[in-house]
Parts: sequence; C-alpha cells; structure tokens
Amino acid sequence: MAISLKNEGILKESLQIRAPVNLALVKYWGKLDESQMIPLNDSISITINELFVDTRITAIDGSEDRVSVNGRIVESDEFGRFRRVFDKLRAITGSSKHFHVVSESLFPASAGLASSAAGFSAIAYGLSVMYELDKDVACELARLGSGSACRSIYPGFVHWKVSRDGSLAAAAAVNRCEVIAQADHWPELCVLVLIGTEEPKHCSSTVGMNASVRTSELLKYRVEICVPKHIKQAKDAIIGRDFAALAEVVMRESDQLHAICLDTYPPLLYLNEFSRQLMFLVHGYNELAGEMRVAYSFDAGCNCFVICRQSEVEHFLPYVCYYFGDIDDRPVVCGWTEEIGTSLRFGCVRNVSQLPNSLRLVVVSKIGTEPKCID
Amino acid sequence: MAISLKNEGILKESLQIRAPVNLALVKYWGKLDESQMIPLNDSISITINELFVDTRITAIDGSEDRVSVNGRIVESDEFGRFRRVFDKLRAITGSSKHFHVVSESLFPASAGLASSAAGFSAIAYGLSVMYELDKDVACELARLGSGSACRSIYPGFVHWKVSRDGSLAAAAAVNRCEVIAQADHWPELCVLVLIGTEEPKHCSSTVGMNASVRTSELLKYRVEICVPKHIKQAKDAIIGRDFAALAEVVMRESDQLHAICLDTYPPLLYLNEFSRQLMFLVHGYNELAGEMRVAYSFDAGCNCFVICRQSEVEHFLPYVCYYFGDIDDRPVVCGWTEEIGTSLRFGCVRNVSQLPNSLRLVVVSKIGTEPKCID
Repeated sequence: MAISLKNEGILKESLQIRAPVNLALVKYWGKLDESQMIPLNDSISITINELFVDTRITAIDGSEDRVSVNGRIVESDEFGRFRRVFDKLRAITGSSKHFHVVSESLFPASAGLASSAAGFSAIAYGLSVMYELDKDVACELARLGSGSACRSIYPGFVHWKVSRDGSLAAAAAVNRCEVIAQADHWPELCVLVLIGTEEPKHCSSTVGMNASVRTSELLKYRVEICVPKHIKQAKDAIIGRDFAALAEVVMRESDQLHAICLDTYPPLLYLNEFSRQLMFLVHGYNELAGEMRVAYSFDAGCNCFVICRQSEVEHFLPYVCYYFGDIDDRPVVCGWTEEIGTSLRFGCVRNVSQLPNSLRLVVVSKIGTEPKCID
Repeated sequence: MAISLKNEGILKESLQIRAPVNLALVKYWGKLDESQMIPLNDSISITINELFVDTRITAIDGSEDRVSVNGRIVESDEFGRFRRVFDKLRAITGSSKHFHVVSESLFPASAGLASSAAGFSAIAYGLSVMYELDKDVACELARLGSGSACRSIYPGFVHWKVSRDGSLAAAAAVNRCEVIAQADHWPELCVLVLIGTEEPKHCSSTVGMNASVRTSELLKYRVEICVPKHIKQAKDAIIGRDFAALAEVVMRESDQLHAICLDTYPPLLYLNEFSRQLMFLVHGYNELAGEMRVAYSFDAGCNCFVICRQSEVEHFLPYVCYYFGDIDDRPVVCGWTEEIGTSLRFGCVRNVSQLPNSLRLVVVSKIGTEPKCID
C-alpha cells in the first residue's frame, strides 16, 4: 500500500552506486528454494573493487520500473529478476515509487565475471540507502536478483551462510552473510582477473545450476560432504592468512564446481582451451616455484581469477603475457602501474601451450570493500 | 622352475595376433589393488575390430624379454608392465622361455585410444594360444599389463566384474570378464572413432587414476553409488537393444569420468577444445533430431568415440567433416566406402564452433570379436 508522504521516506531520489564484483572462493551452485533464493550450500567470497559496476538508481512517481545494462534496455523474461527486487522493496517499505536504473560495467556481461551479482548488489545497496534499510535487508534484496549478489553487499572476506538443519523455514532463517574478515585483514592478497576473448556463456548460471540440481549425480555428495569441509578450510586459511592452504582449497573448489558442471546432463562446458591452459600454467608455475604461489578460480564462464600475494604479481604477469598475450604487444593491464618484464623467472612451464591473443584484459586488484555512493 | 621338455609344451614358437581396442561404455577408473590389478568398480566395454594392434610374439630360449611398440623399443620403467606379464606366464606354466614382441598399430599410442589395452590383450591372447591356457588366465595376464586390456580378450559386449563384498581376497576371486552379448547381438550398432590432431596425454591413465584415487573427493561416491546404477542401465540397454537408454548412460559415464578427472588434484585435463566442441555437436545434433541418435565417449584422452546406428553414419559424418575437417579436403575416413555428403541434414548446430583441421582420421567400425591369430 502506498504511503501518502510526499517523499515516502526516501532520503534521496537519485543515487550513483559503485558496487564490486565478488569472487567465490567456495562456490555457490544450486538452490534449495528458488523463490526465496536459498542456496544448497554455504559459500565464501572476496570482493574485488577494481572490477565493479556503476549504477544510477532514480526513484520516480511513474508506474513502470526500467533498467538498462551497458546501454541495453532489459526486457521481458530477463526483467523478471529486477521486478522481483523492486516489488520486494515496495512490499517492505510500503513505497509506491518505481525505479529507473542505468548500470554500466567495464567488463562484458555474461562472461562469467559475476557482473549481474555486482549489478544487483548496486541496486540493492542503493535502495537500502534511499530507504535507510539495514544491511540484512539489502542482502535479501540483492539475493532476489542474483543469489551471489548478496555477497557483494559486504566488504572483505564474506561467508554466505545457509547451514540448515531440516526445514526450509529454518534454512530461510539463517540465509544471510557474515564478514569473516575486513579487506585490510590480509593486505598483501591480490586478485588478477584474466579476461579472455569474448565467448558468451552457452548456458546462464541460473539455468546451469538448476540443471545441475536436477541431473548431477555427484552434486548431493558435494553439498553434504565436500562443501562443509571446504568452508572450514577456507575460513581457517583466511583467518590464519595461510596462502598455501587457501590456494589449494580455492583451486579444488573451482575444479569441483566444473566437475559438477560436467556431471550435469547435458554437460555444462564453461571451461575452454584458454581456461585449460591457464590451469596447466598455474599448477606448472607452482611446481617450478616449489611451493604454492598462485591459485586460479573460474566461475560459470571461461574467464579466470588468479589469487596471489602482491609480491608475486610482477613474476606471474610475464607468464600470463607470454602464454596468452598479443603476439606484437602486451595485453591491456589495469590496476598495475609497474613495467611488466619479459623474462620468465622459472623458464617455460611444461605442458602449457601458447595461445596468442587469447587474453584481452588483465585487472589487478586488492581485496575490496562494500558498495558505496559515488555521488 | 623350468620344464625340461624340448618345446616346454609350446604349441607354436611364433604367432601373429590381431587384437581389438575396446571402448568402455561404463568406465574403469581407479584400482582397489595395484599388484593384482583389481579395479575399484565394474566396467562395461565393446570391442572395435577396425581399430586394432597387430602383434608378433616369438618364444625364444634366450634370457631376455624384448618388446617394441610402433618401432620403438620399450625400456626401463615402461617395461615393468610387460615383464610382469611374462613373469606371470612363466610362473603359471613353469616355462623358461623368454619373449620377443613386435607390436604395431594404425593409431597413435598414448592418445587415449586404449592402444596399450589392445597391445596387452594381443600379448596375453597370444601367450594363451602358445601355452593352451584358458580364457580366464589370458584375461588375468592381460590385466597385469593394462587393467582394461582384459576386456579386449572377449568379443562383443563385455562386463568386467569385480563386485566385491568386503575382503580383497573376495574381490580378487570375482575379478573377471563376462560376455553380456556377442558382437552379432546388435548388428546395427556402429562406432565412429574420431582422432584429432596429435596431443600426447599430459598424464598417463595409470598415473592419472592413481592420482584420482588419492585425491578426488567425489570418486568414492561415484564408485559406490553411481557406477552400480550405470552398470545396470548399460546392461539392460544392451540386452534390450535400447539405443536411447544406452546413449544417455554412455555420455553420462564419459562426463562423470572427466568430472572425476577434474576433481583430482592437480586436475587431469584430458578433454581439449576439440573434445568440447564434439560434445556440443553431439548434444546439439540429438536436440535437432528430436531424439537420441548419437552418443560420445572419451577415455583418458582428447579423442572421441561416437556410437550410433549404422543408418545414422551417413547423416552424422557430414557434420563431423563440416565442423572439424580439413578446409580444402575431407578427413581420412576408414571403414566407410560410401561417398560422404556435404549437406547438413538439420542445418547448423547452435553453440558449436568450427575447428578446421582438428580431425585427422575417422574410423567407422561395427562391434567386433575377440583377438585372433592371423598367421
């Protein structure tokens, strides 16, 4: 029901929000309940501030919500997820406002880079500022748009909990995010986002994970047995700043997500040859280094996130450029001001094939903070 | 102890054996016991006579066994598996003979085409003929060289059983092969072996499966829960000649094998971009056809086996040539005498990328019989 106050309690009619992408270290894949967006299992993420969306939200007195993403109006089916967020906001606040949203990101949508998660977290965060709602509500709004978006509402190392014990109601009650550690807890931790040449996903995350829930024989075992173990390992590694332990669980999680994707019928094949050679490179590099120096993670797409210590970036970047860069030039690197050397610290890596021109963009980022207003 | 008979009971001093490759429809991956070669789970295979090795075995009075494969002398570590077979033969028969083996195959070794399985089945079969041993003994000898080689000792549709119930001794006692149906049970069933450009495996099957047993979190669940179900589904489908049912379980098994490979740490990445596009092609083709017409299966390598009905070959081959063939020419096709058309029956397949020149050879085969002497 509409409130008859002139501004309906809105603090600000228009806001510009910058919201970060988050990278899942322990992966969310599968829903227990679609309508309430309750995941099958816990997940853990880090936010990456160098990869973000900028979103303007304007509350209007009209009767229509409208969203554009990277210059394209969102329509029909695709709009449903946005409508769900706005409807929920109106239900919670009693506001009759509608919303115009213009969202822009540096990186391609549907490339498996959690752009929709960042987008929905920007909207949810913006609405929560407009209506002075608390963070748990922002988290719920974000989740209704895109499950993992709720993790981008929080800074640093985030644990999306669902730990359930029987009923759906019980699961719904604990469906929220907790900050494991703030961004400055582990200042030397870096993320390299490696964006390959454009290859749209053959199947969206939403459709893909629902297919996995329906058809994967191994998913149940992963959810019940593997994930709880990985959550504990990842949490302990984060709290103890144990890079080697974190790196192993992060790669195992990425690999297991894609194992479940393969075990889905028909299979989800997000990893391509670029992804495959990157995986060889990372394991080969660590082997040559004699210890864990870098770790990869892939979401539902072929693009890669690499985590490492700040001090490793200068050594690993030449490898990335050598194996995947332009033949004549270096790939575009954002967030890194130093010269990228050409020498390969440990020499070539066995079993890795060069795939020239397969890398479009590298973004180097520290662990970041929550969304913010940039008006 | 050596027997002092002049010919030591040998029926023939030299034999030429042709032994077929076998394709696992339900996959063998992981050993319960390495020394006795007891697999973790049952498997089911078909033999493919068009893909075979020709092996000459000569019993000599010297003191050294010698093996050459495709012109290369097998040495040091690699020779251990052969020595194990010869030693076992001498232990069983009491013979003091040694053996010279010369093995040749049409197709590349270490390409995931079960060449070593065919090779060891040729040796084991040859020795069993020389010494008049029964089939179970030939099976055991073959297995000592390469686990899945024992399946190539039998014709048609073969079930390698291990169904165990507690002790290792019990498992060893039932570790043998059974013929589900002879080759002529399902005469319209065809296999297309699609051999891509040479890419040696980054990790041998033996090393790979041992790594999976040590590190995969999902393997145990696969072995205990998934495989018994798949064995039953595949057996029923074979006995009932139900192509759609067989096709689904065959693809699920291939996908699950590679899911386990991905879940291994570090991951085993046998499937490359050629494999990936083939998987898209097969599922897309079936979708366009509105029913199950073709099914893929990959062993531990990037090369593909496609099963289909004889009547489907002429329709599917143009797709294979279109997506993976030479730009200017058709790939080499063995075992198929008809002209290969250029028209794509259902038009192009969504989501499949052309990978010109990625196909080196296509072998079309019916289900075959056991090894034979070709002297």
